[in-house]
Amino acid sequence: MRALVVRGPGLVALEEVAAPVADQGSVLVRPVMVGLCGTDLEIIDGRIDPAYVRLPLVIGHEWVGAVAHPQQAAGHAAGARVVVEGIVPCRHCRACVAGDTNRCHNYDEFGFIRAGAAADLVSAPEFLVHPLSETVSDESGVLVEPASVVLRAVQRAAPRPGMKVLIVGDGTVGLLAATLVRLWSPASVTMLGARPQQQALAEAANVDQFRLQQDNSTRYDLVVEAAGTSAAVGAALASPTRGGTVVLLGLAGSGVSTPLLVDDLVNSDVTVMGSFSYTATAWAGVVELLNSGRLDLSFLVTHRYPLADWREALQTLGTPSGARGKVVLTIAR
Amino acid sequence: MRALVVRGPGLVALEEVAAPVADQGSVLVRPVMVGLCGTDLEIIDGRIDPAYVRLPLVIGHEWVGAVAHPQQAAGHAAGARVVVEGIVPCRHCRACVAGDTNRCHNYDEFGFIRAGAAADLVSAPEFLVHPLSETVSDESGVLVEPASVVLRAVQRAAPRPGMKVLIVGDGTVGLLAATLVRLWSPASVTMLGARPQQQALAEAANVDQFRLQQDNSTRYDLVVEAAGTSAAVGAALASPTRGGTVVLLGLAGSGVSTPLLVDDLVNSDVTVMGSFSYTATAWAGVVELLNSGRLDLSFLVTHRYPLADWREALQTLGTPSGARGKVVLTIAR
Amino acid sequence: MRALVVRGPGLVALEEVAAPVADQGSVLVRPVMVGLCGTDLEIIDGRIDPAYVRLPLVIGHEWVGAVAHPQQAAGHAAGARVVVEGIVPCRHCRACVAGDTNRCHNYDEFGFIRAGAAADLVSAPEFLVHPLSETVSDESGVLVEPASVVLRAVQRAAPRPGMKVLIVGDGTVGLLAATLVRLWSPASVTMLGARPQQQALAEAANVDQFRLQQDNSTRYDLVVEAAGTSAAVGAALASPTRGGTVVLLGLAGSGVSTPLLVDDLVNSDVTVMGSFSYTATAWAGVVELLNSGRLDLSFLVTHRYPLADWREALQTLGTPSGARGKVVLTIAR
Amino acid sequence: MRALVVRGPGLVALEEVAAPVADQGSVLVRPVMVGLCGTDLEIIDGRIDPAYVRLPLVIGHEWVGAVAHPQQAAGHAAGARVVVEGIVPCRHCRACVAGDTNRCHNYDEFGFIRAGAAADLVSAPEFLVHPLSETVSDESGVLVEPASVVLRAVQRAAPRPGMKVLIVGDGTVGLLAATLVRLWSPASVTMLGARPQQQALAEAANVDQFRLQQDNSTRYDLVVEAAGTSAAVGAALASPTRGGTVVLLGLAGSGVSTPLLVDDLVNSDVTVMGSFSYTATAWAGVVELLNSGRLDLSFLVTHRYPLADWREALQTLGTPSGARGKVVLTIAR
Repeated sequence: MRALVVRGPGLVALEEVAAPVADQGSVLVRPVMVGLCGTDLEIIDGRIDPAYVRLPLVIGHEWVGAVAHPQQAAGHAAGARVVVEGIVPCRHCRACVAGDTNRCHNYDEFGFIRAGAAADLVSAPEFLVHPLSETVSDESGVLVEPASVVLRAVQRAAPRPGMKVLIVGDGTVGLLAATLVRLWSPASVTMLGARPQQQALAEAANVDQFRLQQDNSTRYDLVVEAAGTSAAVGAALASPTRGGTVVLLGLAGSGVSTPLLVDDLVNSDVTVMGSFSYTATAWAGVVELLNSGRLDLSFLVTHRYPLADWREALQTLGTPSGARGKVVLTIAR
Repeated sequence: MRALVVRGPGLVALEEVAAPVADQGSVLVRPVMVGLCGTDLEIIDGRIDPAYVRLPLVIGHEWVGAVAHPQQAAGHAAGARVVVEGIVPCRHCRACVAGDTNRCHNYDEFGFIRAGAAADLVSAPEFLVHPLSETVSDESGVLVEPASVVLRAVQRAAPRPGMKVLIVGDGTVGLLAATLVRLWSPASVTMLGARPQQQALAEAANVDQFRLQQDNSTRYDLVVEAAGTSAAVGAALASPTRGGTVVLLGLAGSGVSTPLLVDDLVNSDVTVMGSFSYTATAWAGVVELLNSGRLDLSFLVTHRYPLADWREALQTLGTPSGARGKVVLTIAR
Repeated sequence: MRALVVRGPGLVALEEVAAPVADQGSVLVRPVMVGLCGTDLEIIDGRIDPAYVRLPLVIGHEWVGAVAHPQQAAGHAAGARVVVEGIVPCRHCRACVAGDTNRCHNYDEFGFIRAGAAADLVSAPEFLVHPLSETVSDESGVLVEPASVVLRAVQRAAPRPGMKVLIVGDGTVGLLAATLVRLWSPASVTMLGARPQQQALAEAANVDQFRLQQDNSTRYDLVVEAAGTSAAVGAALASPTRGGTVVLLGLAGSGVSTPLLVDDLVNSDVTVMGSFSYTATAWAGVVELLNSGRLDLSFLVTHRYPLADWREALQTLGTPSGARGKVVLTIAR
Repeated sequence: MRALVVRGPGLVALEEVAAPVADQGSVLVRPVMVGLCGTDLEIIDGRIDPAYVRLPLVIGHEWVGAVAHPQQAAGHAAGARVVVEGIVPCRHCRACVAGDTNRCHNYDEFGFIRAGAAADLVSAPEFLVHPLSETVSDESGVLVEPASVVLRAVQRAAPRPGMKVLIVGDGTVGLLAATLVRLWSPASVTMLGARPQQQALAEAANVDQFRLQQDNSTRYDLVVEAAGTSAAVGAALASPTRGGTVVLLGLAGSGVSTPLLVDDLVNSDVTVMGSFSYTATAWAGVVELLNSGRLDLSFLVTHRYPLADWREALQTLGTPSGARGKVVLTIAR
């Protein structure tokens, strides 16, 4: 089968590799659409912390697929569309048994440690496979992974209807945050973006106000940092109302820091929450919202390339221009 | 009556001033013991943000007293010992009606905006006056104010029995934090101090381990920063376990910052909570704990001076040496 | 001025009474629309616990008005529409200072203890007066009181997006619960009603399924009891999923009980929350949601009568027929 | 090996049975001490819901043991004392992945579905095995199971230091509740018991007041029902303060109900929480508290019988007289 394999810094190619075999308790799934994200570029360029990656590696950790071998998966019909949790929790460490699978002590993840989905087939443990309703688009499905990261982060802040929200960042994660925070009916959602070309996508996400410059006169009950730069984190920390909450989602790179003004945090009675990845519960929550029809993320996929055109896809990912949401690879369906 | 009055930077003196008159709804109270803290020095030296102070000012915001004029205070017997909340909440702003009186939009506080307790008499609104049981020492009473600050902060972190706790700071606030966090039966309490002379007080506070150097090999479920320096905040931010919580209590001075390592916070799924002052509910909670006999803070008062010796008291406060907890002024009882 | 006065059981009449005078800190407000509810009938019939009522009494505790005497109310323009919190919290008891104004130890309420709004003028303490935006209908305004009761109850259950919700009861409170729980984007809202004629209103409230018979095969994450009968409470208690929550809002009458099956509650790990009245914070939250345009309750007012036709209004309230939401009295604007 | 086997209603005997074999991922453990509880009597008498039991059955679900075959258990030394979680969670249902293992959709439990610990050997999945520190007594270890049930229930109520607590019930579960709630430093703990002979044990549990009659004049912030009778649940429901919480732990028997006074619950703003069994996290929490030395439950074991004297042990369990805590069987060590 085909697979997009990284063998070292800068060494990435679409190769012919042996297809996986589904062992006991696993399901073979044919990827239909695979999202690419900045972390994929870091893996390819060798910029990622090597502790999180095992080479050679088939990349692809955001994806939707179709069940390939139903006989091995009771309850999954042939061709049924599914999404597969990317993190493979050990299920016996203290974090896992508490439901904090995002903090599993024994890290394993598709597209990082084990073969990902930029390929013709993936073998996945059955307990990680979630069926999608027919009403859910492939585009929504391919976004379940980043949406789970965002849902877990936003839920952690326990939003209340009527709050004023600021999203810092206008990339896919920021746009997902603007979309998902709407589930709690905020009074308003403002986005502090970096590229004017993202305004249309921000509007599609029902953002009330799209800004390119920080407005120091307004404070927000909830601030979600989704850009992952030192400056963006600084803008986020400067924006909460007294008693407000700042959620940090974006990764800024190893060793990157932002000055934390101690007295501002204390006097303003502010809470800052880092939120790492997603729990299995958050993943199930996103699937439930999509399947119930309460959520549709299709608008966020703006660029599609066949798997064979992976070079163009990575090029588009690396050099944003124009309105850009998620860049995906499409694979046979 | 006598009062310790600040008239400008460095201008402080024990003066003869007109005694307050209790108007409708107020109680006249004779201060018995008044605690001094670093903020008092900042007021005297003119280093505090002028927005928080109205000169000339009688200082003294940590105190215990005795009811002077019972006829004006139904329910308060003559001579009954009381503590009086320092923050005077407006009771109609959105923060006050939600119980967040520490974030009252209309700031007013004894010893900052209105006359404090380093004097022979104080007039206090009745709704702020809390009776102390006879079993509670004056020393415990004088510490209700800082203990309320600490209780509110620790409660906010929702501790669970069995956790591992680190207190950063060995001053009165740190020692109070070590004492109060015991109410949740942690598995262990470690203190990262600055002065070896504080070890005995740390032991009196039932600290399991008193350290002068950070131990990078141990992580804590809950970290309470009570020293208020950039370095101490940095040590606190480096100490939580994954999923842990850091509470920042200490004020470091206007504009002082600490580098916040963004990826550490995100990857470690850590929550950082600033906590400002105390709510009326936290104050009532400390009084309840003292009156029920579950809490005794007497050991924390280490230096006592008659009001007339206020210069020596301030000197002791400004130049710590030996084991030092709270420095207090004693007034006629 | 005119006022609808209750002088004893069954003794109710529109009378000419002295107009209130606004004292210091109060605002005179002209009621525009006054909602009637079952409690008003209980007051009139003398069925209510006398501890909650002081006769003679001007009834009317759900209302929207317009400022009458702006000179006495800095910040309120003449004719500006306002809603006024019904509960008058004492602001010094332990419940009030904690923000639990619904549990104020010193009960006082418009239309129960002090004169209500079925009259030409009301004098209201300024801290209870909330301006309405021009975009908010009188119908939405008149429903702020019951909506606050419902919001406080639903918030208490900490709903999460994607949950399955059951509302028991198809009266105004049930319809408000169906409307307000939508703010948390549930996967579905089912209503267990009593009268088929309410189906259209249930649909206007975006209920997904309107049932007249309990469906024992389905369980719900959140159940809100809003009918206030023993049978309805029984239906509610039988409906949560394992780990689910039942919120009880409806009052069933003094001494009325429902059998609580102990093992069902324990084995199902279910939480049952009574929720009493509203906090000042919940009231402000409803106003904020209305003013931001996120909430519109207008569809719930189905019957309007001029104040002079109060007999017909009470008749309509007492004998429901056809689709019936809130019955209101309209007063001069 | 020996095993206490139930083959049908009333058919219980100490039999010679085949010893279990430790398969991959399991540990063989020699039970040292096995607690007996009312549920064991229900199993023996056939009064338990058959859905929860698979006959023939080796009973024993409260126990402490010693590792028998260390070669099969990396990390467990020969003879090391351990406790083994009784509930065997499936680890893939939605409840398990959320950490709610007490609500696992696929029920399996030692001493109910699979062979329990009233025997010479037990084979246990390694992920359920928790080492005990040498400082922990066998008596504390044997109580980890019921203590986990109680800890999970009390934690759920989020106690705060300074509260007033009522425990309804003076049996082992009630005494455990009184002991564990102390971890949150309540102002007072009152026990409403049924047998005056339990007073000494209540005192050993640091109960402030032991009562045999309900005191209608006092209300409590937290009420824990641990007796499991209709009357006891009624007493619990009548006891909370406004805004208080009642936790129901005790099972009263299939179909047993208590009248729930609807208006009392609503007007008093009270929360009633059923709490079922324990989570894996609660179990780990109890072990952590014991290992850290913060908790000692030894005083609760009052009756010891060798396994061979199981008839006398069951007799003592069925007919309480004198001070009685936990009745245990001792097995070779």
